[in-house]
Amino acid sequence: MGADKGKKAKIVEGGEEEDGTKLFPFVEKLQEIQDDLEKINEDASDKVLELEQQFNEIRRPVYNKRTEVINSIPDFWLTAFLSHPVLSDILNDEDQKLFKHLVSLDVEDFKDVKSGYTITFKFSENPFFEDSELIKTFNFSDDGATNITCTPIKWKEGAYLQEITNGDVPNTNSKKRPFSEDSFFTWFSESNQKNPLGPADTIFDEVAEVIKEDLWPNPLKYFNNEVDEEDFDGEDDEDKESDDDEDDEDEQEDEEDES
Amino acid sequence: MGADKGKKAKIVEGGEEEDGTKLFPFVEKLQEIQDDLEKINEDASDKVLELEQQFNEIRRPVYNKRTEVINSIPDFWLTAFLSHPVLSDILNDEDQKLFKHLVSLDVEDFKDVKSGYTITFKFSENPFFEDSELIKTFNFSDDGATNITCTPIKWKEGAYLQEITNGDVPNTNSKKRPFSEDSFFTWFSESNQKNPLGPADTIFDEVAEVIKEDLWPNPLKYFNNEVDEEDFDGEDDEDKESDDDEDDEDEQEDEEDES
Repeated sequence: MGADKGKKAKIVEGGEEEDGTKLFPFVEKLQEIQDDLEKINEDASDKVLELEQQFNEIRRPVYNKRTEVINSIPDFWLTAFLSHPVLSDILNDEDQKLFKHLVSLDVEDFKDVKSGYTITFKFSENPFFEDSELIKTFNFSDDGATNITCTPIKWKEGAYLQEITNGDVPNTNSKKRPFSEDSFFTWFSESNQKNPLGPADTIFDEVAEVIKEDLWPNPLKYFNNEVDEEDFDGEDDEDKESDDDEDDEDEQEDEEDES
Repeated sequence: MGADKGKKAKIVEGGEEEDGTKLFPFVEKLQEIQDDLEKINEDASDKVLELEQQFNEIRRPVYNKRTEVINSIPDFWLTAFLSHPVLSDILNDEDQKLFKHLVSLDVEDFKDVKSGYTITFKFSENPFFEDSELIKTFNFSDDGATNITCTPIKWKEGAYLQEITNGDVPNTNSKKRPFSEDSFFTWFSESNQKNPLGPADTIFDEVAEVIKEDLWPNPLKYFNNEVDEEDFDGEDDEDKESDDDEDDEDEQEDEEDES
């Protein structure tokens, strides 16, 4: 910060106050006030989290009712995934066969909202694995680290997907894995244990974020193929056909998110 | 969306349900549920805004007390601006002379928090302009547009800064303006009226955002030069000397902001 200090020194040089001790009581008082503001801000954050928790409880029965209705629509989640500019990329042809056995999808915040969430995939009896539920869990610890865990999959004998997650670290250089990098299971099994590339707190799971913040709030939009491609710039350029009238609204949301 | 439709068609082709009319009641029911969720979400947003408003009222007297204390510290805002990796860039040498007359800075949300905010600069009697207050106002309309207005400055006769804002559009090609692009007044006077480059809703005022979201919550951090340069990547590279132990925490904040 050499340049900054230089600038600061210049003011003092040409300025009124060179004696730091005269200012000290004011700076100390100012620090106390900043501490008060910090406490108010923490209080505000707690209250917002409480509110989010309350609204999660209000939403829960509505989400459960929605799951019931969705169960009456064949291939709902498969269709929604395939219509999604980001999520369609993780379903290869084999995954699509498996997704025909996907009974339900659920995203749930922990009761203490800021500490994490789960994404649960429920499957009917299928030729691939024994599990009826695959759960990916995101734990946020107080120090900011994200801990990702996932159900260890009990593959059926000879199941086509077995090699992907059978103890192997997903690895672009791997010659053993017959499937493309873009696979539901490559994503699903990417957890801390299996990712040697960095510490836990550097992990950012885009697919999980998209499922939680975009698909889950309104999957019908994707099922109906009413998606605004502009929201996913750079993804699936070949799918871009036209802008639609949702642009302004979506741009506004983006701006608010950034602030 | 040709490719998506292709994928979707493929499922229907090989799938169970080709007759859309069978599905219609379920999709309709699903839309009703999505509408219910939308209402709950709007309700939640309103409640969060109410909460923010309440906390703004709690913070206001503390901010006012802070302003009093700051008034006892000479060149407080000038020093804080110059120690800030982004804000130091908009204060040229002449601006710094003017900032010695800056009595106070205030950032205030509108009572209806989401509809906008003001940044107010109060100046003591100075050789440059007649105004005692310069106010930059950001109005957010419901359709997502941002309307920016600013106090028209009453320059004193022959004041050095007059040419910048005297009805001229800030323009990099202008040969009339003797000051660099990086000037407090170039920023201050950039409002809708004076920016012919795009519609109002494309304006993103980085300096205003930094003042509101970073400087205003804790200016003491900058006055004390306790800034983490990593927060402002790409800005002021020459100031970078070392990483400090705040890195992890700040990276977490960045990650949360993006989500």
